[in-house]
Amino acid sequence: MDLNYSFEQAQYREGVQRFVARVLTPLVNDKYDFSRALTREEIARLRADIAGHEIATEPPLDENGNLDLICLGIFMEELARLRIGLVSLATALFFPVWDLGGLLKDGQVDSYGHMFAPGEMVAMGMSEPNAGSHIAGVQTTARRDGDEWVLNGSKLWTSHATIAAGIIVLARNLETGRVSLFIVDRKRRDYHVEPVKMMGFDSISTCAVSFDDFRLPSDAELTPDKGGLRTALSFIEQGRLRLMFMAVGVAQAALDLAVDYAKVRTQFGKPIGAFQLVQDMLADMAIHTETARLMAYRVASQMMTGEPCRKTVSIGKAYTTESAVKVASLGVQVHGAIGLTTECAAERLLRDARMLTIPDGTTQIHKLTIGRELTGLDALQ
Amino acid sequence: MDLNYSFEQAQYREGVQRFVARVLTPLVNDKYDFSRALTREEIARLRADIAGHEIATEPPLDENGNLDLICLGIFMEELARLRIGLVSLATALFFPVWDLGGLLKDGQVDSYGHMFAPGEMVAMGMSEPNAGSHIAGVQTTARRDGDEWVLNGSKLWTSHATIAAGIIVLARNLETGRVSLFIVDRKRRDYHVEPVKMMGFDSISTCAVSFDDFRLPSDAELTPDKGGLRTALSFIEQGRLRLMFMAVGVAQAALDLAVDYAKVRTQFGKPIGAFQLVQDMLADMAIHTETARLMAYRVASQMMTGEPCRKTVSIGKAYTTESAVKVASLGVQVHGAIGLTTECAAERLLRDARMLTIPDGTTQIHKLTIGRELTGLDALQ
Amino acid sequence: MDLNYSFEQAQYREGVQRFVARVLTPLVNDKYDFSRALTREEIARLRADIAGHEIATEPPLDENGNLDLICLGIFMEELARLRIGLVSLATALFFPVWDLGGLLKDGQVDSYGHMFAPGEMVAMGMSEPNAGSHIAGVQTTARRDGDEWVLNGSKLWTSHATIAAGIIVLARNLETGRVSLFIVDRKRRDYHVEPVKMMGFDSISTCAVSFDDFRLPSDAELTPDKGGLRTALSFIEQGRLRLMFMAVGVAQAALDLAVDYAKVRTQFGKPIGAFQLVQDMLADMAIHTETARLMAYRVASQMMTGEPCRKTVSIGKAYTTESAVKVASLGVQVHGAIGLTTECAAERLLRDARMLTIPDGTTQIHKLTIGRELTGLDALQ
Amino acid sequence: MDLNYSFEQAQYREGVQRFVARVLTPLVNDKYDFSRALTREEIARLRADIAGHEIATEPPLDENGNLDLICLGIFMEELARLRIGLVSLATALFFPVWDLGGLLKDGQVDSYGHMFAPGEMVAMGMSEPNAGSHIAGVQTTARRDGDEWVLNGSKLWTSHATIAAGIIVLARNLETGRVSLFIVDRKRRDYHVEPVKMMGFDSISTCAVSFDDFRLPSDAELTPDKGGLRTALSFIEQGRLRLMFMAVGVAQAALDLAVDYAKVRTQFGKPIGAFQLVQDMLADMAIHTETARLMAYRVASQMMTGEPCRKTVSIGKAYTTESAVKVASLGVQVHGAIGLTTECAAERLLRDARMLTIPDGTTQIHKLTIGRELTGLDALQ
Repeated sequence: MDLNYSFEQAQYREGVQRFVARVLTPLVNDKYDFSRALTREEIARLRADIAGHEIATEPPLDENGNLDLICLGIFMEELARLRIGLVSLATALFFPVWDLGGLLKDGQVDSYGHMFAPGEMVAMGMSEPNAGSHIAGVQTTARRDGDEWVLNGSKLWTSHATIAAGIIVLARNLETGRVSLFIVDRKRRDYHVEPVKMMGFDSISTCAVSFDDFRLPSDAELTPDKGGLRTALSFIEQGRLRLMFMAVGVAQAALDLAVDYAKVRTQFGKPIGAFQLVQDMLADMAIHTETARLMAYRVASQMMTGEPCRKTVSIGKAYTTESAVKVASLGVQVHGAIGLTTECAAERLLRDARMLTIPDGTTQIHKLTIGRELTGLDALQ
Repeated sequence: MDLNYSFEQAQYREGVQRFVARVLTPLVNDKYDFSRALTREEIARLRADIAGHEIATEPPLDENGNLDLICLGIFMEELARLRIGLVSLATALFFPVWDLGGLLKDGQVDSYGHMFAPGEMVAMGMSEPNAGSHIAGVQTTARRDGDEWVLNGSKLWTSHATIAAGIIVLARNLETGRVSLFIVDRKRRDYHVEPVKMMGFDSISTCAVSFDDFRLPSDAELTPDKGGLRTALSFIEQGRLRLMFMAVGVAQAALDLAVDYAKVRTQFGKPIGAFQLVQDMLADMAIHTETARLMAYRVASQMMTGEPCRKTVSIGKAYTTESAVKVASLGVQVHGAIGLTTECAAERLLRDARMLTIPDGTTQIHKLTIGRELTGLDALQ
Repeated sequence: MDLNYSFEQAQYREGVQRFVARVLTPLVNDKYDFSRALTREEIARLRADIAGHEIATEPPLDENGNLDLICLGIFMEELARLRIGLVSLATALFFPVWDLGGLLKDGQVDSYGHMFAPGEMVAMGMSEPNAGSHIAGVQTTARRDGDEWVLNGSKLWTSHATIAAGIIVLARNLETGRVSLFIVDRKRRDYHVEPVKMMGFDSISTCAVSFDDFRLPSDAELTPDKGGLRTALSFIEQGRLRLMFMAVGVAQAALDLAVDYAKVRTQFGKPIGAFQLVQDMLADMAIHTETARLMAYRVASQMMTGEPCRKTVSIGKAYTTESAVKVASLGVQVHGAIGLTTECAAERLLRDARMLTIPDGTTQIHKLTIGRELTGLDALQ
Repeated sequence: MDLNYSFEQAQYREGVQRFVARVLTPLVNDKYDFSRALTREEIARLRADIAGHEIATEPPLDENGNLDLICLGIFMEELARLRIGLVSLATALFFPVWDLGGLLKDGQVDSYGHMFAPGEMVAMGMSEPNAGSHIAGVQTTARRDGDEWVLNGSKLWTSHATIAAGIIVLARNLETGRVSLFIVDRKRRDYHVEPVKMMGFDSISTCAVSFDDFRLPSDAELTPDKGGLRTALSFIEQGRLRLMFMAVGVAQAALDLAVDYAKVRTQFGKPIGAFQLVQDMLADMAIHTETARLMAYRVASQMMTGEPCRKTVSIGKAYTTESAVKVASLGVQVHGAIGLTTECAAERLLRDARMLTIPDGTTQIHKLTIGRELTGLDALQ
C-alpha cells in the first residue's frame, strides 16, 4: 500500500503526458475529425503518424511480462483526457490493451492471426437486445451443420464493428448447451452491421450486428471446452477497467478546463474562480476526480494480484463512472452558458461521461453485485 | 392554500392535454422537424395548422383579465412534455405568453405594433459576453446622435433572433447613464446575428447578436423614464417562470417515458419495473417532478398577488431546473443503453434539461439571492 | 390550485404563531422539562396552563365540520418548530388530532369513552418486532375464550404507552382470521410496558408493550366486522400526515436558528452569513423546507377530498422526512462546533429529524409504494 | 502506486485486528464504561490491562525510524471500528501518535518531560470562541511580566483537558507579535476547565479552558523563534489525518453492523439483505467506505514523502468525514427503528460520525482550501 507513484511510474506518466501534449493533441485537434467515427483509413494514417513514438507503441509491462495495469491505467487516463475515443481505439492505434489474440489456439493462429495484426481491431459482440446485463441469458445460437457453424442472433452496443477486422461473438453452442465465443473474420464473410447514433462517444461507432443463418468454418469456436462464460466475463472485467480510466480521464479533463476558465473569466469584477460557490464546484470536482482515480488504481492493483476482485471491480465501475457524470456536469455549470455550446469541450465531456454509467453493467447492476458480495444474498431473483 | 386543481383548472388542463395529444403531437412528430430550429415559414404554417383550436389561441385569463399564471403554467407544462421548444416559441405559435407589446407607448404602437402581431416574436437581448448574471453591468450602449440612437455592443444567448420580427435590447443610455430598453425593428434595419449550437433545445435558435454603430430612430427607447432596469428584471422574472414550467414538463415527460418502458422491457424474466432498484429511480423521478411542479405553482400563485417574490422565484428556478436534470438523467438510466441513443427521447430530454440550470440566473446565483433574502447580507461583493 | 394562504388560513396561522410565541414557548423552555418524557401529571398541568387559549383547544374545522387538514398542518408545524414532542402529545395537550374515539360503537362509549376524554391519550400498538412495515403480517393474536378475548403478542415503537389511558392493539382475530383492532383500558387491567431509549424525540416515551395471555372483556374489539386492516391503514395514513408536518416544523426551526446565527456570528471579520458557502447551506435549507411544506399541504389537500392518495402520501412522507434530515444536518454545519453541543438546539433538531425517515414506513418502503402505484408492479415479492 | 497491502502491512493489520478482537473488545464492552469520558484512573487501569501486548505499545515505524503513517492509519482505523474515543485517547493508552514531546528544547525536558511520560496526555488548546478556522486570528495573548508569562484568553473544543497532564496553548506573544505555543503544566498550576456536552464522542471529554492572568514560568514558550504558526499548523495537519482514519473506522463499523443485521433480520419472509433497496444502501456504504479509506491512505502516503500536501489533506478531510456521515446514516436506516435506539451501535456511530465534519476545518473551509490550491485565488476575503 503506497499511494505515491513509484519512480518508474512517475517517469512513465510524464512520458505519456509529453507524448499526448506534443504529438497526439495537434493530430486530434487539427488533423483528424473526432466529431464522428473514424474510418479504417484514418485510423491507419493516425497510427502511422505516431508510429515513431515508443511510448505509444510499446505496452507497459510488469516484471513478469504482463501488462502493468497501473501504467496502462495512466496511459488510458491521459488518452481520455484528450479524447475518450482514443481509449476505445487504443488497440488499433497503439498496442493491444487486452489480449484477445491470446484466445487463438495453435491451429487458429494461421487462419485468424491477421485479425490481430498491429493496426487492426476485433469487435466484441456481447450484449443483446434482450440480455443487457445478463450474459448467461444470451440468445444468439451457434448450431453445428456438417463442417460449419450456423450463427443466428443479434448483438447490440458493439463498438467499432464497422471498422473492425471481425468480431468475437458470444453465443450459445447448441451442441453442448454452453455459452461460448466464436470468431467471425470479415474478410471471409461480412456481417450485417448498423451504426447507432449515441448521445456521446462521437468518435466511436457503436453498432448493431446481426447474424441470420450466418455460416462459420468449423474452427471458429474460440472456447470449445468449458469456460466460454468465464472467458467472456474476464474480458468484460477488463473492459470495465478501461471504462474506469475513461471516467477518470474525462473527469480530469473537465476539472482542468473548469479551473482554467475560472481563472480567466471575470464577473462582478473578479475572476469567477475567486467566488466561493465556484470554488465549491471545483472542489467537488477535484474530490470526485481524485477519489475516482484512487479507486481505479485500486482495481488495477488488485487485478494484478490475480485474486478474485468482483466486489472491487463493481465498486470501481459504479463509483468512477457516476463520479465522472457529476464532475462533467459541474464542469458545464462552472462555464455558465458557454459550457452549453458545442464549441466548448465541457459539453462533449458531459455527453461522454453520461455514456459511462450504463455499458458493462449499469450502476444498479453493480450495486447488486456489491450487495451480493457483502451479504451472500442474491437480490436479482 | 388549496393544492387541488379547481374545477375550472382541471377542465382547462384536460382541454390542453386533449389538444396536445390529438392536434399537436402528430404535427410535431410527423409533419415538422423539431430536431433543428424552425424557420419563420414553418412557424407560420404550424400556427395555421392549429388556428382552429381555441385553447391554443386564447390565453387563459383570471377574473381581472390578466394572464392566469396557474393555467398558463399548465399550458406550458403540457407543451414542454411534448417538446420544450414549443414553450419558447409559444408567443409565435399560440398567444402572447408575456406582454412585451405593452411596453409600447402610444406613439410607438404605430411604428412597432406590427412586430407584436399574432404569429410574430420579438427577441430579448439581455445577456452579454461579460455580464451574464449581472444585468446592471450591461456594456451595450445607446448614444444619442441627432435624431437617432447609435447602438454598440453584443448580445449573447438570445433566443429566436434569426426568426424574430426584431429584438428588444438592454443597453445603457449614455445620456441619462441609466439602463434602458431599446427596440430594433428588423424590417427597418437588420442586425448581425449568428446562431450558436447548443447541447440541447434543438428546435430553438440561440443566437449572438451584435451592433456596431447601429442606428435606431429616436422613438426606439421603450423605457425613456426611470425604470428600464426594473422593467428588464420583471421580464426576466417572467422568463424564469417559463423555465420552471419547462423544467416540470421535461421532468414529467421523462417520468412518463421511463414508466412506460419499465412496464414492457423485460430482463431476468420480468419487467424491469418490478425490480426495486428501477422503482427506486422511478420514485425519485416522481418525487422530484411532483415537488417541482408544486414549487412552480407556488411561484405562479405568488406572482399573481403582485407581492415581491424574489426569494420564491429563486427557490423555484433553482429547485425545478436542478430537479429536471436529475429526473432526466435517471430517465436515461432506467432505459439502459437504449436511453443513450438519439432515437430515444430520454436522451433529448436530458440534453434539454441540462440547458435549464444556467440561463436567467445560474443555480449558484439564485442560491445567493435566496441567501441574501434570508440574511440581508450580500455575498457577491 | 392556489398556493397562497387564504385570508382565514393566514389569520389562523398568525393566531397559532402568536400563541406559540407568547404562551407555549415560555412554558416549554422555562417551566417544563422537555429533555425527557413528560409525566401524566406534567401533561395535565401543561394542559391547564394553556386551557384559556381558544386556538389551543379548538380544532380547526372545515365548512363540513371535519378537521381542516391545512390548518391542522399549520398548527402542527408551529408546534414542531418549538418542540417536536408537542405534536406527538397534541391530543392530550390541545384537542384530538385524530378521531380515535369515533371507533367506539354505541355500546362501547359507556365503557371506553373515558379514555378519550380531554387530556387523555390512547396509544396505538401497531408495529411488532417481526412486522415493521408489514401490517398484514401482524403476529399478535386475539383468541376467544368464553366471554373474553385473550391477547398474546408484543408491540414495539408505541408512543406514550407509559402515560396513555390505554392502547388500541392491532391483532389477528383467531376466530375470523382477520386483522382487527382491540382496545385495552389500563384502568381495568394494566399491560406490561417498557420504555425504549431513542436517539431523538426526547420528550416522547417510545415503548415496547407486551401481552401474555392478557384477558380483555368481550366488547374490546373495535372492528368486529371486516375492515380492521383498512381502519388501521387509515390511522397510519393520518399518522404519516403528522410526521410530515413534524418534518416541516423541524426543518423550519433549523433554518430559523441557522439564519439567526449566521447573521451574528463573525469569522474572518464578517458575519458568516455573508460568506457564499454559508448562504449556499442556508439556501439549500430554505429550498428543502419550502418544497417540503408545499408537499405536506399537497397531501393534506388531497386527503380532504376523500380521494385515494396512496402515492401522494408516500411521496410526501419520503420527501418531507428526508428533507428534514438534510436541513437539520446543514443547520448543525452552519453553527460549526457550537452546533454539536447539546446546548444548541441544532443538535436536538438533527436527532429529532433523524427519527422521521423510519417510522410509519421507511423511505425505502414508501419508494416501493410509489413505484407500485406508477407501474402497477409489486417489487416486494 | 500499489494499492495492495505489502506483506508487512498485511501482517501488521492482522495483528492489530487480533489484538482488538481478543483483548480490547472485551475490555471496552464489558469492563470499562465508554458511554462517558474516562477518568485518569480508568485510563491508567486500561493501559495496564493491555500493557503486555507489543502491538498496542510499540508504534509502527518506517525504515527511517519515523512513524509509518500507513500502519498508524491501520491501527487507528481498527481502534475506531471498536470505539472512536480510543483513537483520541491513543497517546495515553498505547503510544505517542504524534510527537508533541519533541517540541521540548533541552532545558525544558527536565521541567516538562514528565507530562509526556507513557500514560500521560497533553491537551492542545487551539480553537477559540472567535477563531474556529482561523488560526492566525488567535486572540489569546501571552504577555511578558518580569520572569513570567501572563496568559489571557479562552480555548474551546479542547479534548481531554480534564484528564491531561497539561495543555499546549496557541497564543500571541505580545513581545514579538507572533503566534506561538506555550506549555501549561497542571501540576504547577491548574487551569480553569469546563467540559462541554457534545452530540457524540461520548467517551471523550471536550472542554473549554480559560486563562485569566494565568502566570507561567519563563521557560513555558515552546516556539520562541519564528515558526509557532507553522508548528501549530503541522500538528493540526496530523490531527486531520487522525480524523480521517476515525472516519474510515466509523464507516467500516457501520457497514459491518448493517451487513450482519441485513443477513439475519427478516421481513416479508426473507432476510432484508435480499431486498435490492437494502443492498443499494449497503453498496453505497461500501463504496464510500472503500474510497474514503483509499483517500486516507493517499494522504498518509503523501505526508510520508515530506512534500507539501495541503490540497490532498483538505480533499481527504472533506471526503472521509462527509462519507462517514452518509455511511453511518445509511447504517441506521438499514436497521429500521432498532437503529434509532441507543442500544444499537448504529445510533452511536451516526452521532460520532456527525462530529467529524466540523473540527480541524469544516468541510466548507477545506473546500475553499482546495479551491485556492486549484486556482491560486483566495475566496475567503
